[in-house]
Amino acid sequence: MKNKDYFLKKAQDNYPVLKFTAITPDISDFTASSGDSFILDLAQHAVGHFSFSFDNVEKFIDAPVRLIIRFGEDMKEINSDFSLYNGNVSKTWLQEEILNLDYPQKVCMPRRYACRYIKITVDETNYPIKFFDFRFTAATSADISALIPCNTEDALLKKIDCVATNTLKNCMQTFFEDGPKRDRRLWTGDLRLEALTNYYTFNNSEIVKRCLYLFAAGECDRLGFLPSYVYETPYYKSGEAHIADYALLYVVTVCDYYEHTADICVVNDLLQICKSQLDSFEAVLDENMIVTMQEGWFAFIDWCPGLEKMTALQGVYLYTLERFSELLKTIGDEDFKKYSSLLTQVRSACKKYLYDENEKAFINESDNRQFSVHSQIWMILGGVINGKEAENLLLLCLDNKNAKQPVTPYMRHYVTEAMMKLGMKDNAVQYLKNLWGGMIELGADTFWEAYVPEDPDFSPYGDRNANSLCHAWSCTPSYFIRKYGF
Amino acid sequence: MKNKDYFLKKAQDNYPVLKFTAITPDISDFTASSGDSFILDLAQHAVGHFSFSFDNVEKFIDAPVRLIIRFGEDMKEINSDFSLYNGNVSKTWLQEEILNLDYPQKVCMPRRYACRYIKITVDETNYPIKFFDFRFTAATSADISALIPCNTEDALLKKIDCVATNTLKNCMQTFFEDGPKRDRRLWTGDLRLEALTNYYTFNNSEIVKRCLYLFAAGECDRLGFLPSYVYETPYYKSGEAHIADYALLYVVTVCDYYEHTADICVVNDLLQICKSQLDSFEAVLDENMIVTMQEGWFAFIDWCPGLEKMTALQGVYLYTLERFSELLKTIGDEDFKKYSSLLTQVRSACKKYLYDENEKAFINESDNRQFSVHSQIWMILGGVINGKEAENLLLLCLDNKNAKQPVTPYMRHYVTEAMMKLGMKDNAVQYLKNLWGGMIELGADTFWEAYVPEDPDFSPYGDRNANSLCHAWSCTPSYFIRKYGF
Repeated sequence: MKNKDYFLKKAQDNYPVLKFTAITPDISDFTASSGDSFILDLAQHAVGHFSFSFDNVEKFIDAPVRLIIRFGEDMKEINSDFSLYNGNVSKTWLQEEILNLDYPQKVCMPRRYACRYIKITVDETNYPIKFFDFRFTAATSADISALIPCNTEDALLKKIDCVATNTLKNCMQTFFEDGPKRDRRLWTGDLRLEALTNYYTFNNSEIVKRCLYLFAAGECDRLGFLPSYVYETPYYKSGEAHIADYALLYVVTVCDYYEHTADICVVNDLLQICKSQLDSFEAVLDENMIVTMQEGWFAFIDWCPGLEKMTALQGVYLYTLERFSELLKTIGDEDFKKYSSLLTQVRSACKKYLYDENEKAFINESDNRQFSVHSQIWMILGGVINGKEAENLLLLCLDNKNAKQPVTPYMRHYVTEAMMKLGMKDNAVQYLKNLWGGMIELGADTFWEAYVPEDPDFSPYGDRNANSLCHAWSCTPSYFIRKYGF
Repeated sequence: MKNKDYFLKKAQDNYPVLKFTAITPDISDFTASSGDSFILDLAQHAVGHFSFSFDNVEKFIDAPVRLIIRFGEDMKEINSDFSLYNGNVSKTWLQEEILNLDYPQKVCMPRRYACRYIKITVDETNYPIKFFDFRFTAATSADISALIPCNTEDALLKKIDCVATNTLKNCMQTFFEDGPKRDRRLWTGDLRLEALTNYYTFNNSEIVKRCLYLFAAGECDRLGFLPSYVYETPYYKSGEAHIADYALLYVVTVCDYYEHTADICVVNDLLQICKSQLDSFEAVLDENMIVTMQEGWFAFIDWCPGLEKMTALQGVYLYTLERFSELLKTIGDEDFKKYSSLLTQVRSACKKYLYDENEKAFINESDNRQFSVHSQIWMILGGVINGKEAENLLLLCLDNKNAKQPVTPYMRHYVTEAMMKLGMKDNAVQYLKNLWGGMIELGADTFWEAYVPEDPDFSPYGDRNANSLCHAWSCTPSYFIRKYGF
């Protein structure tokens, strides 16, 4: 079996080249005294480094100047009071620096930022100073010149596609980041959707390969599941979380990869790891073939508060089993029979134990009889119900105010996928226009990590300023629009 | 006549080489969580750049770390609450930075600091982090290996000499700075005392020459006086203040320079400027040969609050006239007669118009009849009174609680010089031991900008944290100890 060093070497071999573009903001220079501030607009969301110069105007400043420089993905972030931050993730994610500068100079800020707007506040200067030569050097590993054209005729879908590809582009750095503002990390769930959209847009298969190997080099937990994220900086480290649905979606990402590249070498390298993910999952099924909660376990599914996740997780398992047995069949691996047969068995068990015949929905004791869109969608994607029955359930749950609803474009991707699986293309187009178009109406330049139409400031972290407004898992409209000709 | 470009070229030709020394603090590593802080001690006052590394301990930090790094010249500064700062100079002089660091790394802080102590506070980290590889790279243009030994047998004087040479060393950078914490600028009054002490310690005449030329390149005010300071960064600029006593002391600095180097080329380059300083001063004398206040004028003399300065300023004029006519005589310049004769005239005028025969002191209307040490000392240094009469007055004023007293080692240098002029060596030694020794008793590693024994926190700027604790004008004990064999 291949080892960690081998996988890391492969990841390194596919390290992408970053491409840099200089962006000049709307304002070319500005003179300011103590207390003054001004906002630069890049006219687009970008990820990279900021530099500027300042000089004396008439009188020489005779003490250091103190500047407060804030980077905001939107104007709400620029104008909010960071001192009131009350989120449950670190306040250091808020992009603001305090700089003391001894004398007029060119300032090249060392950190990378994700922003459309830059607010410079002169906290203290003895005399007016003049700012000029603003430059934001944007970075991405996406090759813009390779972007496959989008053929939709619909103006809104065109706009959605454009924002979606920008979102992906800005998350494509030296790996697929979840969000360039926060956490800037490689997560499996995000990777799967980024990679999928990538095949239809920038089609950079090396970076997908690289990410697959980065996970392969990770350390599995006691149950055998891959880490859900890995650290790349300052050196490689396997992440501590082993989210069950993410471990399964790693296998799906490998299946997608083969489907789009036919690269059998990579599949051969990763096949054993994929099998062990499914085998590890099989080991936590009860005698009825239903997944049971394990100590220290966590499923993600969505950021929906209070969501019960066992049924959805079981659906992810089915979805993965189906994709993986297809892959095995395609490449001529005899194990496909074992996984196919398991798929059939587990599907039946789900209908028997997780479906409530009276309610005509997946409402069960596993999830404390909670009715969620998530359970219905994943059972549909898992093939437990089909056709008109599934279609009715899908529409019913989306329409039910009492059902737990998705709060992330991540979960809404799977809702849209379920619609497409059921042949509900019109519904899918409308759903996509409503949900992703809703963010555009609110001024989004890139798609957000979380979006609740009735509560646009909703945050999974207790504070909107912690939210990532350019989040890779929200880029999949480009996948749907391009793959299915929306 | 030579022009600005010529003088700047000469200044550039004498640009000093900085020498760097790595200082390792007392602590080699430290593990810290959010809210923790620790203090590094360099065991000496130093001027330069700080670097350190930090890394994860067990868990990877999964958000940027925020550090607050404070540099203090002493522990009082390290432990004080900067948010209460109430000084009348910019708060940006307080040496504290807030750093957001994305991941473990070696951090080389870009600014220069003056400090003995460094306090690192971990404002936010998700998991404990370990700090290590602390390094302070100290810079000076003083050549330590060239330091002339000090022959005093007295333990306290030895200690005072050591602290004084450290003070000078740390102010010797690419020019003679007044203080490396604040203002880090070339001022004439400071330059004169630094240059003087330099001849007896590091004896680097190039840096003196360089500073003389930097002023020569400056722009005189409407009255003909040189600027009192010049800016060197980011590019040369003549300062806006033209302090009267400082303009005169520039001439004295040229005299000192010739006395110690016999470098006639420099004197020839600067002679016309020197003459014009004295001629400009002559132009502001009234019909009695007494200086009159000019619009927009300012004399420094000392930071003593409420000090009346016209008599002292007149003394600086006499002192300068005497030194300059000696120089002219030495180099065979016939103008010496004009300045000598002026000196005699003005001395008589001072005795007649500024001395109160009843009070037996220089108390007069020019200074609203204020009795100050400053007036007495400068009249003595100006040679208006001599011998026992001067000695009695000197002792009397220093002993008089109602007299305005010096608050800076700068003014106390001239008190000591006056004692030596009057042959009061024992008093001078005792004065020096009391005043500079007093700072050492309070833990000084370098001598302070201001020091009032009864009020050690006295600040000319309304807040002790604005004070410079390594101030060049306080380095002259090494001059006295070494020149006069204290």
